[in-house]
Amino acid sequence: MMYTIDFEPIGRRVTAQEGETILQVAQRGGVGLAAVCGGTGTCGRCLIQVMSGRASPITENERKRIKPDRAAQGFRLACETRVHSDLKINVPPSSLTTAQRTQVEGRELDVRCDPVVHSYDVQLDPATRQDLRSDAARLCDRLQEQGLGCLRVDLSAAQRLPGILRAHDWQVTAAVIRDKVVAVLPPRNPPLGIAVDLGSTKVAGYLVDLTNGETLAAHGMMNPQIAYGEDVMARLTYVLQNADGARQLQAVIVAGLDKLARTLCQKADQSSEDVVEAVIVGNTAMHHLLLGLPTQQLGAAPYVAALSEPCDLMARDVGLTFAPDIFIHILPNIAGFVGADHVAMLLGSGIYKAQDVVMGLDIGTNTEVALKVGDRLLTCSTASGPASEGAHIRDGMRAGPGAIERVWMKDQQVAYQVIDDVPPVGICGSGILDAVGQLRKIGLLSDLGAMALDHPRARPGERGPEFVLVPRYESGNEHEIVLTREDVSEIQLAKGAMRAGAEVLMQEAGIAAGDLDRIVIAGAFGSYIDVRNALRVGMFPPLPPERFDQVGNAAGVGAKLALISAEQRALAQEIATNAEYVELTNDPRFTLAFTEAILMPSLDVDSIF
Amino acid sequence: MMYTIDFEPIGRRVTAQEGETILQVAQRGGVGLAAVCGGTGTCGRCLIQVMSGRASPITENERKRIKPDRAAQGFRLACETRVHSDLKINVPPSSLTTAQRTQVEGRELDVRCDPVVHSYDVQLDPATRQDLRSDAARLCDRLQEQGLGCLRVDLSAAQRLPGILRAHDWQVTAAVIRDKVVAVLPPRNPPLGIAVDLGSTKVAGYLVDLTNGETLAAHGMMNPQIAYGEDVMARLTYVLQNADGARQLQAVIVAGLDKLARTLCQKADQSSEDVVEAVIVGNTAMHHLLLGLPTQQLGAAPYVAALSEPCDLMARDVGLTFAPDIFIHILPNIAGFVGADHVAMLLGSGIYKAQDVVMGLDIGTNTEVALKVGDRLLTCSTASGPASEGAHIRDGMRAGPGAIERVWMKDQQVAYQVIDDVPPVGICGSGILDAVGQLRKIGLLSDLGAMALDHPRARPGERGPEFVLVPRYESGNEHEIVLTREDVSEIQLAKGAMRAGAEVLMQEAGIAAGDLDRIVIAGAFGSYIDVRNALRVGMFPPLPPERFDQVGNAAGVGAKLALISAEQRALAQEIATNAEYVELTNDPRFTLAFTEAILMPSLDVDSIF
Repeated sequence: MMYTIDFEPIGRRVTAQEGETILQVAQRGGVGLAAVCGGTGTCGRCLIQVMSGRASPITENERKRIKPDRAAQGFRLACETRVHSDLKINVPPSSLTTAQRTQVEGRELDVRCDPVVHSYDVQLDPATRQDLRSDAARLCDRLQEQGLGCLRVDLSAAQRLPGILRAHDWQVTAAVIRDKVVAVLPPRNPPLGIAVDLGSTKVAGYLVDLTNGETLAAHGMMNPQIAYGEDVMARLTYVLQNADGARQLQAVIVAGLDKLARTLCQKADQSSEDVVEAVIVGNTAMHHLLLGLPTQQLGAAPYVAALSEPCDLMARDVGLTFAPDIFIHILPNIAGFVGADHVAMLLGSGIYKAQDVVMGLDIGTNTEVALKVGDRLLTCSTASGPASEGAHIRDGMRAGPGAIERVWMKDQQVAYQVIDDVPPVGICGSGILDAVGQLRKIGLLSDLGAMALDHPRARPGERGPEFVLVPRYESGNEHEIVLTREDVSEIQLAKGAMRAGAEVLMQEAGIAAGDLDRIVIAGAFGSYIDVRNALRVGMFPPLPPERFDQVGNAAGVGAKLALISAEQRALAQEIATNAEYVELTNDPRFTLAFTEAILMPSLDVDSIF
Repeated sequence: MMYTIDFEPIGRRVTAQEGETILQVAQRGGVGLAAVCGGTGTCGRCLIQVMSGRASPITENERKRIKPDRAAQGFRLACETRVHSDLKINVPPSSLTTAQRTQVEGRELDVRCDPVVHSYDVQLDPATRQDLRSDAARLCDRLQEQGLGCLRVDLSAAQRLPGILRAHDWQVTAAVIRDKVVAVLPPRNPPLGIAVDLGSTKVAGYLVDLTNGETLAAHGMMNPQIAYGEDVMARLTYVLQNADGARQLQAVIVAGLDKLARTLCQKADQSSEDVVEAVIVGNTAMHHLLLGLPTQQLGAAPYVAALSEPCDLMARDVGLTFAPDIFIHILPNIAGFVGADHVAMLLGSGIYKAQDVVMGLDIGTNTEVALKVGDRLLTCSTASGPASEGAHIRDGMRAGPGAIERVWMKDQQVAYQVIDDVPPVGICGSGILDAVGQLRKIGLLSDLGAMALDHPRARPGERGPEFVLVPRYESGNEHEIVLTREDVSEIQLAKGAMRAGAEVLMQEAGIAAGDLDRIVIAGAFGSYIDVRNALRVGMFPPLPPERFDQVGNAAGVGAKLALISAEQRALAQEIATNAEYVELTNDPRFTLAFTEAILMPSLDVDSIF
């Protein structure tokens, strides 16, 4: 029996079979429904409202997670609700993964444009009865006359060559990588490249003119794999539990990258036929899911990659269609949880070549920490959890319209700033960090994170004290926004993990926090946070705020550098080879540091620094 | 309006639109209907019989080509008959391209098996917390310990590696080409290779054990592109006249090769997962159509290839699915009409390394002629036409069941041999050559090819004298088989072209026919012909029959050699580079030689040799 499921307010209609879960239907229909836990019923993020029709009865698990009044309104978990008739489903904004703010810009480094792909405008002699060389041989011979040791023409270039030569009086622009003509273009078209930072949450793309390194367009989007699990582990679990899961996850990201590339070309009014190479960086799991590499061994101890080395492939090899015949260079990974995105961040932030003592953090669900001291480059990865994305937080949400992104408190006053200046519906990562930092500042949180009740906005909650950031009467949408003791714990665990990773690296290098000349914070969350509040909660070693450097999407910048500079690409390989990976699992130093790091520091940021 | 078209006796039902031609419907439905001319209404081979339903009225062109009594029976040309209702169509065997005899065997050369792909059985150390190398790095490191400069693992091998390692106690067989692991197999599985001779008419495939060079299975099939045009030029015309033609022709041959490869694996009870490389040879047009290279410049003067150089690609690059991740090596072409199949023939027949003076002919619609004298290797291509395939002959057909393949005449007696010993329905290439040779022997043909009438079987026909090979009363199927004066002319043109090509090469090399130590005849037609009859019609320079060597499918043997021996593959490249191509178009020597060569020689084969 087939049914029709209408998803509102986004207005998508999807066909469903008897007994399917709403989450399955949403995923198949491209409805970007949040599923942090991969549909295992444990995260509670896929909350939807059944408006009409007959669904399976509410489960025990749902009763625990959904308040009786909400349940009475038809609120359900999409992963546990099964279809028994046509349904109308309301998807609250907080359950949607789309329309989020993505950050693509990062601080640029000044690097000479000297890409791996070189281009040559050449004029060939026409074929005659006396000169019957193939078009490909004719091109290679001319390039050799110009001093190139060019021996081969890639099949896709050979397919396009005869048409271009005969349409343009035997003139052509040849794009050459090492000894291979990888693409041919109409004469004098500049070859273009695309750099992509493929994050678990956000994907940033850049269209670059390979003759001068100029960025012609930049664009960000959410990773559509989010619908299958919000973090890396949830997606690896999805693959493990669904026979076709790996193929599904590959297909959605490939479709997403196709769309991203087309958007970039449209924005810059360029033809995808002129794109000759792309560089993609991502964490090891994103890398494996994109390349169709098995992930089972990546998700279980000792967490090893199938392939970590840099690799060159054709776009079509992974099913990309926007320019199927271009070469794609994938930067190398360092370890199972320190991927090419971190390599690109170390490249794009300049940390790898830094002469001073620098710590670098790329904050996300996994936070990679790096420490550059002299010739040594130490890296580790810490499971900081999804709090920075607003997940596992009662009223948390991604950084999209309606999210509180800044919080200020003074005595009994509370002020906040909402993305897009609309009535607030939740609180995103930077807002949560601010709220906890400000609560600590006004003295409402103990060293252990316990919340006192001596504030008009503080009150006892079902599961401990909670703080009303936005009272119902004030929100403008009848929506109360509350920070709970448990939310504070999430931040403590997250910052504790990052901080403990940083401490272990400093121990490994034999330095103290005071020896750090700089702390570089990369990534979207890292760009939006207020460093003073981060210091108040003890996220970073206590250093004056001016030693912190928020560089934006350094991984994207690194991907661009590897695209426009052969030298930078070689450096990326060097980074992957030379980085010393420190495995924190089962490291007693980490356990000890973590126990301390979850505490709130006694630090008067305003007076000390 | 949609109609249903039933093709009998093969029993295929295809949906058609109002106004489509029967040929279009047949091609879309995979009915192997002959279309020598590519559907331009000029060859008359796509004869079908409309049994019921309403089709477009008979055309002027059809009136000229179909006798009134046959037309009254509903016989039509499929390319000119349009659908106006549901139809029942009878396809006579002579209009079908399938169920033909294909020749795959060739005389083997003794070559040491030392393929480009090397395989190594290795035992790796399991991944541990102390040893977190990626699976690919682990394999490369072990291979390097064994002295290999192995630096990269192909993506497809990396995809399969983690599964094999963990299922087989970290043992694996790695197939390595140069510095790349191209495939990984369960431990101790011998890597397999496939060699393919991709002819315009016939396709021969061989499954080979790459550890010892042994052929595990051989299989032949018709080239399914025949339905779009029986010879190379007809197919190039089809591509030129149909926007989607190139993609269609590529798709049918790719599907055919997939089927061939699967059949080979089934025959030998082997898994396609163990196939690691394939070598494909074909003439330049087959090469271009398979690789998706443009053919417009190949079909018009000065007839140049897009790509002639040897190339390596992945099976998936051309859409092959039986083993999408294997490497395919394509041997080089010599010129627009001297392709990789001729290179393979020169390799497989041993001509290239011959110390004596040897001429080699690969007879087909285009006949390639080569001459090896000392260090020189001369080649040319002659448009000998499709008579050797039974085309352009009144009662001609391919070498399939019911075809007369041998003819003997003595005085007034005529004897013949039919393939599969069924009642004769037509005459194939070797039979036609026999018939003309025997008619010359019994004195019924003049030097010019004029047919005398002083024989009980000779009679005046509509367009000159004709000879009844099989009278209606004798055939057993009411089917009269006749050789016309025009058929004799076809043979004269065909053999004249080959012979003139041979003469020009001898002039170019400065030798006379008597200097030839051997004439090597390759290919299916060349294997089945009676050399004495070929000498009687003057197809070859007059030499004693014992100097002729019918070697079978030497191109297939050559493809196999390039598969099992890196040295032989390098020789193939050397052949393509060193062969001197002699362009016959507009060569006055050719015109002169051709004028002489179309005459019948005065040669008493039986008494002279």
